[in-house]
Amino acid sequence: MAEYQHIRVERTDDVVRITMDRAARRNSLSAEHLAELLTAFRDVAASDALGVVLAGEGPVFSAGHDFADVSSRDLEGVRELLTLCTDLMRTIESVPQVVVARVHGLATAAGCQLVASCDLAVASEDAAFALPGGKGGWFCHTPAVPVARAIGRKRLMELALTGDPIDARTAEQWGLVNRVVPADGLDEAVDDLVRRATRGSRASKALGKQTIYAQLDRPEADAYAIAVEVMAAASQTAAAKEGMSSFLEKRPAVWTD
Amino acid sequence: MAEYQHIRVERTDDVVRITMDRAARRNSLSAEHLAELLTAFRDVAASDALGVVLAGEGPVFSAGHDFADVSSRDLEGVRELLTLCTDLMRTIESVPQVVVARVHGLATAAGCQLVASCDLAVASEDAAFALPGGKGGWFCHTPAVPVARAIGRKRLMELALTGDPIDARTAEQWGLVNRVVPADGLDEAVDDLVRRATRGSRASKALGKQTIYAQLDRPEADAYAIAVEVMAAASQTAAAKEGMSSFLEKRPAVWTD
Amino acid sequence: MAEYQHIRVERTDDVVRITMDRAARRNSLSAEHLAELLTAFRDVAASDALGVVLAGEGPVFSAGHDFADVSSRDLEGVRELLTLCTDLMRTIESVPQVVVARVHGLATAAGCQLVASCDLAVASEDAAFALPGGKGGWFCHTPAVPVARAIGRKRLMELALTGDPIDARTAEQWGLVNRVVPADGLDEAVDDLVRRATRGSRASKALGKQTIYAQLDRPEADAYAIAVEVMAAASQTAAAKEGMSSFLEKRPAVWTD
Repeated sequence: MAEYQHIRVERTDDVVRITMDRAARRNSLSAEHLAELLTAFRDVAASDALGVVLAGEGPVFSAGHDFADVSSRDLEGVRELLTLCTDLMRTIESVPQVVVARVHGLATAAGCQLVASCDLAVASEDAAFALPGGKGGWFCHTPAVPVARAIGRKRLMELALTGDPIDARTAEQWGLVNRVVPADGLDEAVDDLVRRATRGSRASKALGKQTIYAQLDRPEADAYAIAVEVMAAASQTAAAKEGMSSFLEKRPAVWTD
Repeated sequence: MAEYQHIRVERTDDVVRITMDRAARRNSLSAEHLAELLTAFRDVAASDALGVVLAGEGPVFSAGHDFADVSSRDLEGVRELLTLCTDLMRTIESVPQVVVARVHGLATAAGCQLVASCDLAVASEDAAFALPGGKGGWFCHTPAVPVARAIGRKRLMELALTGDPIDARTAEQWGLVNRVVPADGLDEAVDDLVRRATRGSRASKALGKQTIYAQLDRPEADAYAIAVEVMAAASQTAAAKEGMSSFLEKRPAVWTD
Repeated sequence: MAEYQHIRVERTDDVVRITMDRAARRNSLSAEHLAELLTAFRDVAASDALGVVLAGEGPVFSAGHDFADVSSRDLEGVRELLTLCTDLMRTIESVPQVVVARVHGLATAAGCQLVASCDLAVASEDAAFALPGGKGGWFCHTPAVPVARAIGRKRLMELALTGDPIDARTAEQWGLVNRVVPADGLDEAVDDLVRRATRGSRASKALGKQTIYAQLDRPEADAYAIAVEVMAAASQTAAAKEGMSSFLEKRPAVWTD
């Protein structure tokens, strides 16, 4: 694996944990930090890992963009930064692994966007989520993209326009996170969800996850046009045949991919 | 009405009940079963019935595709099966009647897709919902299309990636079903919802339902472009004129269509 | 400001309150009433106000279209009315101000559409919401457009097909309103939300709100294509620079626009 300055990457069995490790900067997302995260997700994508946990070291999950980095950039420079950030968000959606956000403390702005962009999210009871750009001078335009798609428009407007944080229970009710647990049970809850979400054929699940992102947000007829072709093709894979055979023969499945 | 082997079709007053009647196969959706359901919905569409209840005989609502049927098919054969299944789902959305799913036991994979594709759904407290392909070898690609549109993306990902069932109360909170009631009150709750959802002009409601499916999932400007034209045209129908006249004259409406 | 017959427009500090003032007609939306509302929102848009509260005088918020007005119109006349109504709804979304609906009593049909079209909504506990066209002869086609985008499809179908009202708590759980409070605390809750939603740079927030409506309902890649360009350009504005400088210098921001 690559050497990193801003993150830590550790693998345990089939799960890779990527930890944002800029605690002193509240895991803010400088260009260098974003680039390392992107490299790490691309490395994981090429590996045989089944799941990824995205976590943050220190008091908060992530405080979003690093204003010290942004404020010195011209238009083209900010555009490059936001393009890099968007590449990271969409790479998280496109890697074959299941990606679970492990959220504690605060997830704000692009940090909140990270939570929305992970396939699944588990939060500790102390977690809070905010899009603070709305009460400042630089609106959270890009974070609003995946957050809106998780929580719906009236709630997105409340987050984005007020800039005020919501607590973890509210985030769960709104569909931004899947589970809320006491802080001392966070790792156990993340492990349980990763384990349950990584069962079965890795190849089948990767195609499944990627196809979901391809069909979301489209008129239903368009979505079905995608899903029918993928599912028909997938029926002829070794994984599909093993899944159906093992079911019909009432034996455990053995996955080769 | 046509003669059926896998389903029962019964009409009481203005409501047709279509019952999946393959209890020994857990109402799994073989090609023959799907074809009969499609024929039944098309027959109902051409009738003057106002509502449809879709129910399942035996211990579960429906277990989804029949692996004994799928596993013997080549790519083209599976594609035909999935196209037939998709035709059924979209026909349910396009028939002029209000369609209510009556869900008990389990609704899994394409069975869960059926629930998501009905206009409305009532579940008994013992019901559970799952997209189990995600923990196997053949992902629930097409069921994820309408389920995502009912419950949002983070919850869809949890269902689709873990393959684990959610209970009826969770399904209600997530918006997959409209009502959850004790098992012994299920038929009464279904009847009540069908009755309330079939009041008014049949022609007006059919156009209303069909236009909703046409405008969903589109940018709002596109959706309004559809809805404005339909609603303007609809204002000149006999039903609209009777609705407005009866309101202004403070008398009960009499619907001729 | 213009002189109005059907509405009242009052400004207090940075907030304009637009009150539908046809209590005897339950604030129904005749062409004249809609035209005045549209003029008022356009006037506000051109002003330096930060927020708008939309309220209704009398027993209900708004009963929707005025059947006495609609029933006398031919197809072209209804089309003009619905186009005017849609212009109002989309103008509410496009004005630079934050728009908060203050809802009491009933919000039905186009009245419910108004609530869905405001950026935020606060309801009193006595409020109820309905799309009654579905139990009559003229379906609520256009109200279903923004309501569906607030509450999801199964719940939209229940509202639209049954025509029955939901109470305020249900509307909050479904995401149609942001807050529900006792009737005697309604104005205070509205004021609090407006205050929190109008902090920060007016220019930045206006662009933020407008960009959210532009990116909603689109495939995520399309939404990001919009949001990245806007956010990059916005980074070079005076507001963004002041927001970042004040943050880095740990001082209160001073907004010039």
